[in-house]
Amino acid sequence: MAVAVIGVGHTKFGNRRDVNVPELAWEAMKQAFDSANVEQKDIDFFVVGTAGLWSSEAAVPSLMAEYAKLGVGSMRVEAACATGSAAIRVGYTAIESGEADVVLVLGVEKMQESPNPTVIEIIGRFGSYFWEFENFGLTFPAYYALHATAYMAKYNATEEDFARVAVKNHYYGAKNPNAQFQKEITLETALNSPYIAWPFKLYDCSPITDGAAAVVLASEEKVKEWGIEEKVWILSQGVGTGTANLSKRETFTSLKSAAFAAELAYKKAGIDMDAPYKQLDGANVHDCFTAAEIIAYEDLRFAKRGEGVELIRNEQTYIGGRIPVNLDGGLKAKGHPIGATGVSQAVEAYKQLLSKAEAGRQAEIKNGRWLTHNVGGTGHYSYVTIYSLEKR
Amino acid sequence: MAVAVIGVGHTKFGNRRDVNVPELAWEAMKQAFDSANVEQKDIDFFVVGTAGLWSSEAAVPSLMAEYAKLGVGSMRVEAACATGSAAIRVGYTAIESGEADVVLVLGVEKMQESPNPTVIEIIGRFGSYFWEFENFGLTFPAYYALHATAYMAKYNATEEDFARVAVKNHYYGAKNPNAQFQKEITLETALNSPYIAWPFKLYDCSPITDGAAAVVLASEEKVKEWGIEEKVWILSQGVGTGTANLSKRETFTSLKSAAFAAELAYKKAGIDMDAPYKQLDGANVHDCFTAAEIIAYEDLRFAKRGEGVELIRNEQTYIGGRIPVNLDGGLKAKGHPIGATGVSQAVEAYKQLLSKAEAGRQAEIKNGRWLTHNVGGTGHYSYVTIYSLEKR
Repeated sequence: MAVAVIGVGHTKFGNRRDVNVPELAWEAMKQAFDSANVEQKDIDFFVVGTAGLWSSEAAVPSLMAEYAKLGVGSMRVEAACATGSAAIRVGYTAIESGEADVVLVLGVEKMQESPNPTVIEIIGRFGSYFWEFENFGLTFPAYYALHATAYMAKYNATEEDFARVAVKNHYYGAKNPNAQFQKEITLETALNSPYIAWPFKLYDCSPITDGAAAVVLASEEKVKEWGIEEKVWILSQGVGTGTANLSKRETFTSLKSAAFAAELAYKKAGIDMDAPYKQLDGANVHDCFTAAEIIAYEDLRFAKRGEGVELIRNEQTYIGGRIPVNLDGGLKAKGHPIGATGVSQAVEAYKQLLSKAEAGRQAEIKNGRWLTHNVGGTGHYSYVTIYSLEKR
Repeated sequence: MAVAVIGVGHTKFGNRRDVNVPELAWEAMKQAFDSANVEQKDIDFFVVGTAGLWSSEAAVPSLMAEYAKLGVGSMRVEAACATGSAAIRVGYTAIESGEADVVLVLGVEKMQESPNPTVIEIIGRFGSYFWEFENFGLTFPAYYALHATAYMAKYNATEEDFARVAVKNHYYGAKNPNAQFQKEITLETALNSPYIAWPFKLYDCSPITDGAAAVVLASEEKVKEWGIEEKVWILSQGVGTGTANLSKRETFTSLKSAAFAAELAYKKAGIDMDAPYKQLDGANVHDCFTAAEIIAYEDLRFAKRGEGVELIRNEQTYIGGRIPVNLDGGLKAKGHPIGATGVSQAVEAYKQLLSKAEAGRQAEIKNGRWLTHNVGGTGHYSYVTIYSLEKR
């Protein structure tokens, strides 16, 4: 049973102290209902992706369901920063399995008002906390800096190369009305920003973000019954898990779980592993830090090992290049509300494939396929999903 | 695609300060692997049910996967005290949908060493925390006491009736080597124990527990390929969500979401709604508090409204009665490690249906069907699952 995204919702990302969590979530859910032309009574399962440790209130799906007037079954799913994609997995397998016809998937996170402990400590909990955070003080900028320096050492990449990713993602973020940062930056601005964890400077890091995104998923049967014209299909998904403890990783220039997930996703979708970008119109990759985007190019086989950096140097991931990446601004400029990010990527896949993205950031749609790459931790969880205008 | 439980694992429940979380989890996983006669390479998806707020370490699936040497995709699911059943749902829909062939579902919780805040506060977070816990100081014993007093007022039930549930569950818990409390109690012991939240006394409340349970789920195809003889099928599951805020509930003598979930499960399984107990050999119900078990009898249609209390008065939920309930000791005597409970119920369904339960607590298996009822919060989430010797 094929599964389609039939409607999407997306709040403004950024500082959302104007609303509480249910209000923020409802903004996205309401848009998704309207966009899919469905009502509460049409939904028969509700999945909420949220890391949720920023607040003492833990009964998030129940609170959201009450606010949205949904009485159907629900649950929360979490896979660190890949939480949103995990929620989509639970939603679409519920339909594929025949257990549900129409599922609402919500991703939501409100991180800016985190009380004690600090946001940085809470994010640190999604690594190998007791060993790496408490013993060595490894925070997430430092985690990814280990990967960045390994990549620099092995492939002669530079801080300037990483900054180019920030420049690209800000360039497109400036054109996305939902982005946290809607301004272009220059290479100089990025390079002159203060260091956070060498080689990363402020502009190499995705921000702390409040935001929500929602999608309505429906079975092929419902799509036919309702005569839905605007939809994209979930073609395939690959998932992988990495070790919690970084000292057990074989390499730092690749996230093994992401490469594994990509292979699975390509295989299921029948996409050529040698040049998958030829069968895709674009991708959203998990650029929580600039270097992570370059490593993602390689894990996703958009470039050979060591050549990912050439893609950004030669502007091959801008529109018109080999494969446009993060045309919504990515985590870097759009923002990264942990639980919402994977769902936000699905919203972007929907908009791009249906050519509904804003002017200046719409890819050319030829193959009708879009990839999303969503990573929890430093490859602790990897979810690669391929969306398509044509069903399997 | 039918889905079977082909192996189970279950740790001793209770105070498990002898092990850390991965060690505790591995005890259950190892048993499940052995019982199913599978190895790590056979597993293609890994679902972890854990509420997990007792520890600062949040990357639970990744930590467990590393410990167990699993590299396949994973995620954490949570639905308060129904977390284990939510994990089973994600596992079996992954197979039903064709996304996976063999899934390991783990439920684990280690609650006894909870640091700050206290266990009672953390459990309180799974209600409508900001409104009910912070404003009114409602803890979970108090939540369920509201239901108990409503039931007493409407149907003339007494504290003695509730105590009878504790006596029954301790009677069977005494025969279960994995139970936290392996001792019988008398009605007097229960009635003379100190009040926690009127009408509940110590023996009306399930304890704070460390424990893990695991099941290996497999597709019909794999069951055939491997020639698996000992297995039980997942016949159906119904799920429902209640309001977070108790003031929005229509009634306190029923958990609406549980009644809703039961109807769905019966309907899908083709079980007669008027007397479902005639087609079941027994059940595990969510007796987090004694009164909750009696309300469950009615939500599950084992008795008419107001007549649930008669079942316990007349020993109709002992072996030989209308329908035996909680022959493993239930949450009350076996213990209630939140994320493990739903998976533990699945283990019990497997053992009972295959007549593998210990002497004195084995039901007579005639219909080949067993029901589990797992509730998060006070009906914030309800999961009713029917296991069967015969596939759909």
